[in-house]
Amino acid sequence: MKTNSLSISSNNALGKQMYQLISQLYPICRSITGNGFRETLRILQNYIPLEIREVPTGTEVYDWTVPQEWNINDAYIKNSQGEKIIDFQACNLHVVNYSVPVHQKIGLDELKKHLFSLPDYPDWVPYRTSYYKESWGFCLTHKQYLALQDEEYEVYIDSSLKPGSLTYGEYFIPGETSQEVLISCHSCHPSLCNDNLSGISVAVFLAQQLSQLSLRYSYRFLFIPGTIGSITWLHENEQRVSNIKHGLVLTCVGDAGKFTYKKSRRGNADIDKIVEYVLEESGKDYEIIDFFPYGYDERQYCSPGFNLAVGCFMRSPHGSFPEYHTSADNLDFVRPQYLEDSYQQCLTALQILERDRTYISLNPKCEPRLGKRGLYRAIGGQSEEALNELAILWVLNLADGEHTLLDMAKRSKMAFDAIYKAAQALLATDLLKEL
Amino acid sequence: MKTNSLSISSNNALGKQMYQLISQLYPICRSITGNGFRETLRILQNYIPLEIREVPTGTEVYDWTVPQEWNINDAYIKNSQGEKIIDFQACNLHVVNYSVPVHQKIGLDELKKHLFSLPDYPDWVPYRTSYYKESWGFCLTHKQYLALQDEEYEVYIDSSLKPGSLTYGEYFIPGETSQEVLISCHSCHPSLCNDNLSGISVAVFLAQQLSQLSLRYSYRFLFIPGTIGSITWLHENEQRVSNIKHGLVLTCVGDAGKFTYKKSRRGNADIDKIVEYVLEESGKDYEIIDFFPYGYDERQYCSPGFNLAVGCFMRSPHGSFPEYHTSADNLDFVRPQYLEDSYQQCLTALQILERDRTYISLNPKCEPRLGKRGLYRAIGGQSEEALNELAILWVLNLADGEHTLLDMAKRSKMAFDAIYKAAQALLATDLLKEL
Amino acid sequence: MKTNSLSISSNNALGKQMYQLISQLYPICRSITGNGFRETLRILQNYIPLEIREVPTGTEVYDWTVPQEWNINDAYIKNSQGEKIIDFQACNLHVVNYSVPVHQKIGLDELKKHLFSLPDYPDWVPYRTSYYKESWGFCLTHKQYLALQDEEYEVYIDSSLKPGSLTYGEYFIPGETSQEVLISCHSCHPSLCNDNLSGISVAVFLAQQLSQLSLRYSYRFLFIPGTIGSITWLHENEQRVSNIKHGLVLTCVGDAGKFTYKKSRRGNADIDKIVEYVLEESGKDYEIIDFFPYGYDERQYCSPGFNLAVGCFMRSPHGSFPEYHTSADNLDFVRPQYLEDSYQQCLTALQILERDRTYISLNPKCEPRLGKRGLYRAIGGQSEEALNELAILWVLNLADGEHTLLDMAKRSKMAFDAIYKAAQALLATDLLKEL
Repeated sequence: MKTNSLSISSNNALGKQMYQLISQLYPICRSITGNGFRETLRILQNYIPLEIREVPTGTEVYDWTVPQEWNINDAYIKNSQGEKIIDFQACNLHVVNYSVPVHQKIGLDELKKHLFSLPDYPDWVPYRTSYYKESWGFCLTHKQYLALQDEEYEVYIDSSLKPGSLTYGEYFIPGETSQEVLISCHSCHPSLCNDNLSGISVAVFLAQQLSQLSLRYSYRFLFIPGTIGSITWLHENEQRVSNIKHGLVLTCVGDAGKFTYKKSRRGNADIDKIVEYVLEESGKDYEIIDFFPYGYDERQYCSPGFNLAVGCFMRSPHGSFPEYHTSADNLDFVRPQYLEDSYQQCLTALQILERDRTYISLNPKCEPRLGKRGLYRAIGGQSEEALNELAILWVLNLADGEHTLLDMAKRSKMAFDAIYKAAQALLATDLLKEL
Repeated sequence: MKTNSLSISSNNALGKQMYQLISQLYPICRSITGNGFRETLRILQNYIPLEIREVPTGTEVYDWTVPQEWNINDAYIKNSQGEKIIDFQACNLHVVNYSVPVHQKIGLDELKKHLFSLPDYPDWVPYRTSYYKESWGFCLTHKQYLALQDEEYEVYIDSSLKPGSLTYGEYFIPGETSQEVLISCHSCHPSLCNDNLSGISVAVFLAQQLSQLSLRYSYRFLFIPGTIGSITWLHENEQRVSNIKHGLVLTCVGDAGKFTYKKSRRGNADIDKIVEYVLEESGKDYEIIDFFPYGYDERQYCSPGFNLAVGCFMRSPHGSFPEYHTSADNLDFVRPQYLEDSYQQCLTALQILERDRTYISLNPKCEPRLGKRGLYRAIGGQSEEALNELAILWVLNLADGEHTLLDMAKRSKMAFDAIYKAAQALLATDLLKEL
Repeated sequence: MKTNSLSISSNNALGKQMYQLISQLYPICRSITGNGFRETLRILQNYIPLEIREVPTGTEVYDWTVPQEWNINDAYIKNSQGEKIIDFQACNLHVVNYSVPVHQKIGLDELKKHLFSLPDYPDWVPYRTSYYKESWGFCLTHKQYLALQDEEYEVYIDSSLKPGSLTYGEYFIPGETSQEVLISCHSCHPSLCNDNLSGISVAVFLAQQLSQLSLRYSYRFLFIPGTIGSITWLHENEQRVSNIKHGLVLTCVGDAGKFTYKKSRRGNADIDKIVEYVLEESGKDYEIIDFFPYGYDERQYCSPGFNLAVGCFMRSPHGSFPEYHTSADNLDFVRPQYLEDSYQQCLTALQILERDRTYISLNPKCEPRLGKRGLYRAIGGQSEEALNELAILWVLNLADGEHTLLDMAKRSKMAFDAIYKAAQALLATDLLKEL
């Protein structure tokens, strides 16, 4: 039997489960296509009944084309002594993602044209991609780079770039209405934990929880390759897009930083108001930032032709921390308590979204007599101690069809929960109806 | 002959008259129905030609029913020696308002279930009511409470609760138009001065003054029992409610606190803008607070089915001072100068309301030549010393049918009076007409 | 061949030319009519092909009448020794502008009724006019005034006030569209440099520069007598007024003070937003002030019957500096660098006005693929270093027909120029069209 009670774990038990999922996904070499992505989705199927979709290479999706599928078995650089000085098996970031196959011997000068390192962070391996231009390359620590001798090297990348398909995962939880909430995570990055195994993991556990509840909205969870994945989904599902009333992109939700919410392009969508309200009420440190057309898949959802009410929920935003897109975004960079805290704020926001409705008073002229309905204290004359009674008065006063419960909570400066409970009490006594 | 000049007394002569009226009304035991309320209205009839209305017990008024009429002759508690230790004749707050009759002997434990005192203010008697639940009780100082012995007491309340009527007073001053300004005071409290003999007294003197003036608006003064009175009036006069364009509830206007104006539910009604402007211009300390659905009869006037432009004008708001609803809200707590100051601010606001109109320039293209109409200095070249001329220019510039005189005063940062006089001069020279 | 490149002089070469023009115009005795005004316009014709218009005395222009033409040859006051103690030839401010002719001998007491001096600035001669009341008078330094002996004086003003015409200059630069930008300068003041030879000079050089450019808007430059000139122009050209979409009154643009922009009566017109943006971006000290119906010809352009989007661009506003309307507003009070700086800000604003358009994305659903159009870097994964790319993304995202380029610049906090260049690149690749 479905219920609306939301059970939250103590001692970060849920956070530890999320972290465990991240740990399991961490070693896999994902890309925007290929078997690493498929393997990732299959693991998620152990948690939620995800459907796995394949869109063939060459499919036209708006201005884009689904690319060839990339797979990789192995890669290394050997020095003239035949020693593997760079080994894909040790860290899949070592290979520029989408590198074409190569096997040749080259000198240091030529090799350097294909190497990427971070002089400011000499122990970290950067993450680089070359999706839309055929090339190959290796990423390495700057220490490794500096240690290179002027000798001949053997470079080897056993990859393939062939017609195949783009893979994504989709989980649809039907609710009372066909109106949808979209939760979208880019899932194409290889061994990078905060960006975005954290988003994937929080989304999986949100989906698990929501599937246990009686829901007003339908929920659509997407685990897609960044950019090309959302473009592909939007193209393939254009007739459904108008059902999406609210949405969140989840990314970078496992680090120790404060919460960051990037508003939808609309800037004043319900989801924007609700997330801001939840973060404000949380008492935690947070920042609300305006939409800008850079970042993750909110760029596509908020393109002017769709302009969906989709914001981006983060802790430290992409690009704001030095570990971003390097090997330092590892299993030490994300922690169970931050994952669980992110999950908790999202769930609270979704709970308000579920409960935030517009009502009309059935007794709009003067206040109704609360006492005869058991909604009022008996002895008059005391001052304002009865807060729930005040919530009832607020709901009655603002139940004019122009205020949502969240509007009432904000205007009254009372907790959403108190307003919600007051509305429930008034519905139960036939003093209110939904618009 | 009626004039528009408003004479204000010096030396608080008017304030002293208001205080005198309060002193006369103070001893009467009022309630939401009954003879105390009638006696109060008869005294007000010495000042203004109030009509006294009676609405029978049992009349259905929206969700409410006019209650039985309550009257009381005497009440006391005697100790076992037959000494009156609590005496209604000494202070009518001693009896819980609307107590049913009782006469019996009871022990201390049983008695205590019917007693109300204030441990934090051991010398004050609280004010308590039980309008909608049949019960009885006594209020006493906490010192009296603590002095009670474990003995047998005789409790006696000679009250009656019988079919009768709800009484209220209404004074209608007709103006040029049928559009009405409502001034409403709850008048049901027994010996409590600030809440609300102060509101009654200021309203009476405002009514007296306004009746001497040539008025644009019609004015309706209501002296009603709180809550049930405004509900009854609204129900009995529903067809007239749409005439009410502006209104004020007057309460707690005699204490030493700063002014407080609680805006109407609309929040940006003319009356809200005008009162805020008057208080700002007064140079006195004040606070503007948003509407909330608690307080006095503005709760009913601003219920969503009416949503009238009625604010609440106060000094210290109900509940914000410890004397509120206790015997300490007595003749020492209100002072003539504060009463007169409240009267003055209200009168200034009503004067602006009367004068605040929307005009259209009859010479909208370029400025008219003021000089040939005697509205301009002769020698050009000096800098902006001619302030009244500037007021004329402001009125001409903003007389586009979209700005009231108050809008002009605010935008120009000039005194309303200067703008008003400029408009009068322009009307006199046919450069302006009312919209 | 016309181009859109705007060349700005270094070393204030342009400012020096503007100053040179001011120096040439300074000695001429101008008034709201007469030969001084005509001579001024003829000098301007050396710079721009100004058309000189004459409107006959007696022409009714709205509430006003074109006055008699005033001309003056000479004027002086001689003492009893026959010495010229006040000489119009030395300073044309000595005669009250529009003085009727006079030649008589009078005593000191009678003379003083016709004298104007400034006790606070004893070395300065004030500027006074008497356009609409027939009288005569002299202005002198307060030192001169105090030195006057009790003797007989010969006063002589060889002026004439006869039917003639009101003269103004107009220069129309046609652009691609009939929509007009109005640049208006009052040009009626005699030897006063900041007010308003500075405005005249900056306008002349702006006109010269604009006439070299390929323009979207048509530009109308007016050199008119204050008040009566703008009233006359509006009356004579009422059918053209609706073409005026933007405008600036230029005055007091040569002094050392910070920039001051007085907004149009509308307050949020495009010209208001653009000038504020330009001044903000300039990094210089500036102040934005709201419209008020006092000042110069913006009073007429912004009268409610026209309500044109015309602001007033100044450095130190009229009346805010002691030299205003005195002989101290001389050639020392204005400087080439300030003139050129004013010119520069105006030109930048007009350039944005020219370029600020509204576009629609031709690829509104999801982002277009920039890479295949040469608008994107090849190797992904780096953080936000590519600022121009960000400008491209902003333009694409906001090209929904509801945002101008300036809106985009403000929302993105990017320079207008970067946004403009991005839009040009997108137009060139057929990703954008103008609304």
